[in-house]
Amino acid sequence: MEENKSKKQTKISELRQDIVTGDWVVIALGRGKRPGEFVKKREAYPPLLDKCPFCFPEETGQEKDVLVFRRSDGDWSLRVMPNKYPAFSRNQPVKNFEEGPYFGMSGVGYHEVIITRDHLRQIAVLDPIEVAEIVDAYQDRYINLMSKKSVNYIEIFHNHGREAGASIEHPHSQLMAIPVVSPGIQLELDGAEIYHKSNRKCAFCSIAGWEIEKKKRLIFENDNFLAFCPYSSRAAFEVWVMPKAHKPYFERITNEEKIDLGEALQKSIGAVFKTLEDPAYNFYIHTSPCDGKDYPHYHWHIEILPHTAIWAGFELSTGIEISTIEPEKAAEELRRNV
Amino acid sequence: MEENKSKKQTKISELRQDIVTGDWVVIALGRGKRPGEFVKKREAYPPLLDKCPFCFPEETGQEKDVLVFRRSDGDWSLRVMPNKYPAFSRNQPVKNFEEGPYFGMSGVGYHEVIITRDHLRQIAVLDPIEVAEIVDAYQDRYINLMSKKSVNYIEIFHNHGREAGASIEHPHSQLMAIPVVSPGIQLELDGAEIYHKSNRKCAFCSIAGWEIEKKKRLIFENDNFLAFCPYSSRAAFEVWVMPKAHKPYFERITNEEKIDLGEALQKSIGAVFKTLEDPAYNFYIHTSPCDGKDYPHYHWHIEILPHTAIWAGFELSTGIEISTIEPEKAAEELRRNV
Repeated sequence: MEENKSKKQTKISELRQDIVTGDWVVIALGRGKRPGEFVKKREAYPPLLDKCPFCFPEETGQEKDVLVFRRSDGDWSLRVMPNKYPAFSRNQPVKNFEEGPYFGMSGVGYHEVIITRDHLRQIAVLDPIEVAEIVDAYQDRYINLMSKKSVNYIEIFHNHGREAGASIEHPHSQLMAIPVVSPGIQLELDGAEIYHKSNRKCAFCSIAGWEIEKKKRLIFENDNFLAFCPYSSRAAFEVWVMPKAHKPYFERITNEEKIDLGEALQKSIGAVFKTLEDPAYNFYIHTSPCDGKDYPHYHWHIEILPHTAIWAGFELSTGIEISTIEPEKAAEELRRNV
Repeated sequence: MEENKSKKQTKISELRQDIVTGDWVVIALGRGKRPGEFVKKREAYPPLLDKCPFCFPEETGQEKDVLVFRRSDGDWSLRVMPNKYPAFSRNQPVKNFEEGPYFGMSGVGYHEVIITRDHLRQIAVLDPIEVAEIVDAYQDRYINLMSKKSVNYIEIFHNHGREAGASIEHPHSQLMAIPVVSPGIQLELDGAEIYHKSNRKCAFCSIAGWEIEKKKRLIFENDNFLAFCPYSSRAAFEVWVMPKAHKPYFERITNEEKIDLGEALQKSIGAVFKTLEDPAYNFYIHTSPCDGKDYPHYHWHIEILPHTAIWAGFELSTGIEISTIEPEKAAEELRRNV
């Protein structure tokens, strides 16, 4: 959080709790930023010295495709290939390491990139049906990798803009299939189970029901999905896209649901794009692990985090994020731009 | 993590576990960055249109000091004042809010800034004894605020550079005394207790003992403190400064220890400054809550996080950070610059 930015302090801030993890965020109402103040000029990409690796995968020595979708004219529209410089490596033996009090293991897993055809057309300007195609690829790769030995969690995510960690400008998502489930995710799984035990219903279903009814933070809905700014947003203009029905496992998404998700995701990212004038952002899927256990109380969803704040010493230390706009106001603005 | 940056992939990455929280990090060995590749040009501060609020607190309408240290010539050397635009507000009634399934409370607490005299002298170039004076101020304010009603955790932190969230250039630390303990911190407290039960010793004492003995990741030590790159570093060139003896509570630091901490902290930050050519960074104290409970198994310490990476979709979603230099190599480099 950047201190001393605003010129007035009228209202006291609000601590809001995440009902799943128990985590806290601060909504710093007093800092009273207007939506326009969140617009930031993005850093340009350096000019390509050579061909774009994702426009010309063959010519630039990328790995061989593991999935290709083609148009009726035979040209590809989407392709998935192993990341050339993977954070997790395929076809390696799993080794455990010990060093004194410490413990580690070899980084075995899968790291893939999901690429759409056009260098200049980011998700915000795609047709909803093209986004449904991306979701279709996510599902295909998820199902292919979930039963691999040593894969216990699959993370699918998308970085847009240099500030959000995308070093290649060409629009692409990534998938990492990894051998561990982080305590950060475990906290959410455990929280969902505890909530279910106390309330006899799913926490995310409670949230979806409330947001659809009240519409204060709702941005968009169709038959199968809703998009809204979460009550305890960790970043200004954060948006969640969630199935309306109780669904623990992303990979079981139906074709009809994929079309609705494509629409909800495209509308949400489009609204963020218009409101914040093409900001850097990340989105990622939170779903149940594929570690052979059941997670009947979890409810998968997508979190979109525009790059609107710097998480500084306080946030890094405590895990409590400070956001300088009420999610209700952010939603109002986003709704206008859907 | 930025993908596709490096030009070679020789070694498989390593997953390393935090023995306290159970969290995982990825040390991406194969990306093989050289230390020099982590040097980033920092964004300059815009020229001051008016006087610096921290050079001239009286003239710029800051809040009244709550602590002042003076030199023998009568001029101030350090002062602490309430943040003019606090994230948490003093002298307000605590109110709880409910909205449907959600829960929140008013952001009541204390938010102070700790300012050293000289606009141009950051911690990296201070004398160790001047850093001990800053630690002395931290302790003074901590003790003053820890018994206040509704204060359950006190976070002391320092942001350096715009990229690390410092919107004012003048060197300053901040203190936030808040009503809640985040699950992020609770995870560390719980982990320390579980480790103690299983191993009959403190996890942090095990770490300190091992690092002092092996010296692979050690950067500096004196009678009371050690500084080292943690085995499961979350960022390249991360450094922890830790008391050698088992100490759960920062606020009980003695005068002799303050002098040693001033030295260890100044040497560590100085080494980071030289190695990465004045990077943006955050540091913060992790200590036991002041919520009236005892935390005999915890061991306070300071974490220094240079701004060497972008935490993108994967890190934000999973909480698993990817670092592209081995902590052993980072320590080797930092040792050279102590």
